[in-house]
Amino acid sequence: MTEKTLGIIETQYFTLSDELTLKSGMKLGPVTLAYETYGDLNADKSNAILIFHALTGDAHAAGFHKDAKKPGWWNGMIGPGKSFDTDKYFIISSNCLGSCKGSTGPASINPKTDKPYGLSFPVVTIEDMVAAQKKLIDHLGIIKLLSVAGGSMGGLQALKWTIMYPEMVKSVIAVATNHRHTAQQIALHEVCRQAIMSDPDWQGGDYYGKTVPARGMALSRMIGHITYMSEKSMDEKFGRKLIGKEKVGYDFSTDFEVENYLKYRGDSFVQRFDANSYLYLTKALDYFDIAEEGDLNSVFRKTQSHFLVIAFTSDWLYPAYQSKEFVKALKLGGLDVSYVEINTNYGHDAFLVEIDGQSHLIKHFLARMEKES
Amino acid sequence: MTEKTLGIIETQYFTLSDELTLKSGMKLGPVTLAYETYGDLNADKSNAILIFHALTGDAHAAGFHKDAKKPGWWNGMIGPGKSFDTDKYFIISSNCLGSCKGSTGPASINPKTDKPYGLSFPVVTIEDMVAAQKKLIDHLGIIKLLSVAGGSMGGLQALKWTIMYPEMVKSVIAVATNHRHTAQQIALHEVCRQAIMSDPDWQGGDYYGKTVPARGMALSRMIGHITYMSEKSMDEKFGRKLIGKEKVGYDFSTDFEVENYLKYRGDSFVQRFDANSYLYLTKALDYFDIAEEGDLNSVFRKTQSHFLVIAFTSDWLYPAYQSKEFVKALKLGGLDVSYVEINTNYGHDAFLVEIDGQSHLIKHFLARMEKES
Repeated sequence: MTEKTLGIIETQYFTLSDELTLKSGMKLGPVTLAYETYGDLNADKSNAILIFHALTGDAHAAGFHKDAKKPGWWNGMIGPGKSFDTDKYFIISSNCLGSCKGSTGPASINPKTDKPYGLSFPVVTIEDMVAAQKKLIDHLGIIKLLSVAGGSMGGLQALKWTIMYPEMVKSVIAVATNHRHTAQQIALHEVCRQAIMSDPDWQGGDYYGKTVPARGMALSRMIGHITYMSEKSMDEKFGRKLIGKEKVGYDFSTDFEVENYLKYRGDSFVQRFDANSYLYLTKALDYFDIAEEGDLNSVFRKTQSHFLVIAFTSDWLYPAYQSKEFVKALKLGGLDVSYVEINTNYGHDAFLVEIDGQSHLIKHFLARMEKES
Repeated sequence: MTEKTLGIIETQYFTLSDELTLKSGMKLGPVTLAYETYGDLNADKSNAILIFHALTGDAHAAGFHKDAKKPGWWNGMIGPGKSFDTDKYFIISSNCLGSCKGSTGPASINPKTDKPYGLSFPVVTIEDMVAAQKKLIDHLGIIKLLSVAGGSMGGLQALKWTIMYPEMVKSVIAVATNHRHTAQQIALHEVCRQAIMSDPDWQGGDYYGKTVPARGMALSRMIGHITYMSEKSMDEKFGRKLIGKEKVGYDFSTDFEVENYLKYRGDSFVQRFDANSYLYLTKALDYFDIAEEGDLNSVFRKTQSHFLVIAFTSDWLYPAYQSKEFVKALKLGGLDVSYVEINTNYGHDAFLVEIDGQSHLIKHFLARMEKES
C-alpha cells in the first residue's frame, strides 16, 4: 500500500479586478497573488482553510512541484490524513502582497513605466495583504472560511483576518506570533534593512538587471537565522565544533561550524529572495499593531471566531508571553480560545519543524470546528 | 561637607621590556598597555585589585579625565567609600591587548613598517591579554592581587588569570560572563565581523588615513546593542513609540524611537572605536574556552582562589545558566564560591548599570578577602 500524496502541485495566479486602496491611502494595481490549493472544495463550500506563510515563505506550502526534490514548507502538516487533512479540507495557501514569490511586489513590473517598481512600490501593510487575500477568497466563491492559519507573519495575517472580516472566519489558528511588533523585533528588522540599504549594490533599490545587494542580504539572513534558532538548539547543533580543522586558524577565515552554517544560509538566501521585498515585508511586520486604534480587549469584540493559539517555550523572537497577552484579551472577551505552549528547543523555527507537537492540536481543533454551527 | 572623589585621572602607559610570545606561536613587540590606578598601594602591597573592561571599553574605569563631562565606565563602583573602595584598595584598570584605547592593537604602528598593522597584526587571545597584564602587575611590584574583577569579556580575563597565575590571585569577581563562548555568541560576533569586512571601505583592513568602514561598524554596533538589552527593557524604554511624528511614514525613513536609538549608537561607535580592533577582540572572545585542554572540573583544580560570581536574570547574551556551569565546577572542586543571580530587566548591560545590586555583594566579598590568610 503506497502512502497517499498530494501529487504534483502547480502554483496558480489570481489578479484582482480592481486597484487596491492601501492603508497608506496609495492605490496599487494590477495586483496579482500567487496561491496553491490542496484537496477539494465541498458542495456547500464549508471546508475551506486559508494558510499564510512566514516572512520569506511562498504559496508552495505542501506537495511537490514538478521535478522538485523538496516539498512545500508545511508539507508535514498538509496532505491526506495529516492535520490539515486534504481528504476533508480544501486548503488555500496564499503568497502575500509585497513578496517576490509570484505576487505583486517591488520586483514586479510597474505597468506605468515597464520597469520594476523598486522603491516606487508603495509600502504595504498586513492589512493590505489581508484585503488582497479577501478578493482571492471572494473569487473562489467562498463565503466563510472554516479556518485561517499561519505561523509568525502568517499568524499576524490570521489574527487580522478575523478583525477585518469577522463574518468570514469561523476559526483562527495562530502559531508563534503576536498582536503587535515589539521594540526588539523592530530593532532586529531595522538592522536587517540597514544591512541591505547600506550595501552599495542596493543603489536605492534600483538594482534589477544589475548586481544584487548580496552582502547586505546575506548579513540580513545571518541575523535572521540566529533569531529563528534558540540559544540551546544552536549550542546542541554546533557547539564549538570546528570546520574541518584540528584547531582554530588564528586568522579571520571560518573557524567554527556555526559560522559556516550562517554563511551558507546567507548566500543561499541571495539566490532565492529579493532584497527590496525583504525591506517591504519587514516594514509591514513592524507596522503591525492590531490594537493601534484602541485597546486590545475592544479590538477582539469585533469577532466571534474560535481560536487555537500555539507558542513555543524556546522561541525568543516571538516569546510565549506575547501570545499570552492576546490570549488573555480573547478570553476576557468571552471567546473560545485554546492556548498551548509546546516545550521545545527549536526556538521560533519550531512552527516549521515541531510537526508532531502541532499536528494533534490542529487536527482535533479543526474536527471540533466542523461540528460548530 | 563635599563628597570625596577620585579627582582628575590620567591614563598611564606601560611598555613590556620583551616581545610577547602569543598563544598562536607568533611574537609581538613592543607591547604597550594603557592603564589607570585609583587609590594607593599599601606598604605590604596586599590591597591591589585588577579590573578588566568589556569588549569596547578602556582603561578609564573611574573618576574624570581633565575637562571630561562623563566619568569612567564603572565610576559607580570604584571610588572613596564605593564597593571597590579607593580608601582601602589600590585599583588597577588595564586596557587589553588588541584594543584601540591606548594599548597595542591593529591600529598601532608596526615598527617594522612604520605603518599601522591592520590585518598583519597577529590574532590575540584572552590568554595573551592576561599574559601582558601579568607583566604590568610585575612591573608594579605586586606579588599577589587581592582580587581580579570584570564583567563580560572582563570576566573571561578574571577567570583566566586564576588559571594561568593561581598563586597571584587571592580572589576572582566574575560578572555576567562564562567559561567558553557558545555557538550563539560566536554567531553574533561572526555577523558583526562580516558586516565590517563586507563594507567596501574596510579594504582588507587597510583603511587607516582613509575612509573608515563606517557602515559596517554601525551595523555591528546596532546588533551589539540589541544583545546588550533585554527584550523587556527595550519594550519598556522604546515600545512602539514613534520619533516625532503622529503616524508611521509609509516609507523607509526612521519611524520608531528604537530605530533612531540604534542608529545613534551605531554612528557614535564609528567615532570612538577601530573596526579592526573590533574584529580582533571578538575573535579573542570566540576562541575562549577555559576547558579546551581538558574538562572544566580539572581546569579549576589549578586554583585556590575565592570566587564571587554574579549573573543577571534577563541577560540573554551571557545567560545565567552559563555562569552556573562554571560555578558548579568550582564547587565540585571544593572551592569557596558565592553565586548570586540579580533580578533585573537590564539584560547584559546590567553589569554596568545595576550598581546597587552589585555594590554590597562586592564590598562584603572584598572585606572577607582582606581577612583571609
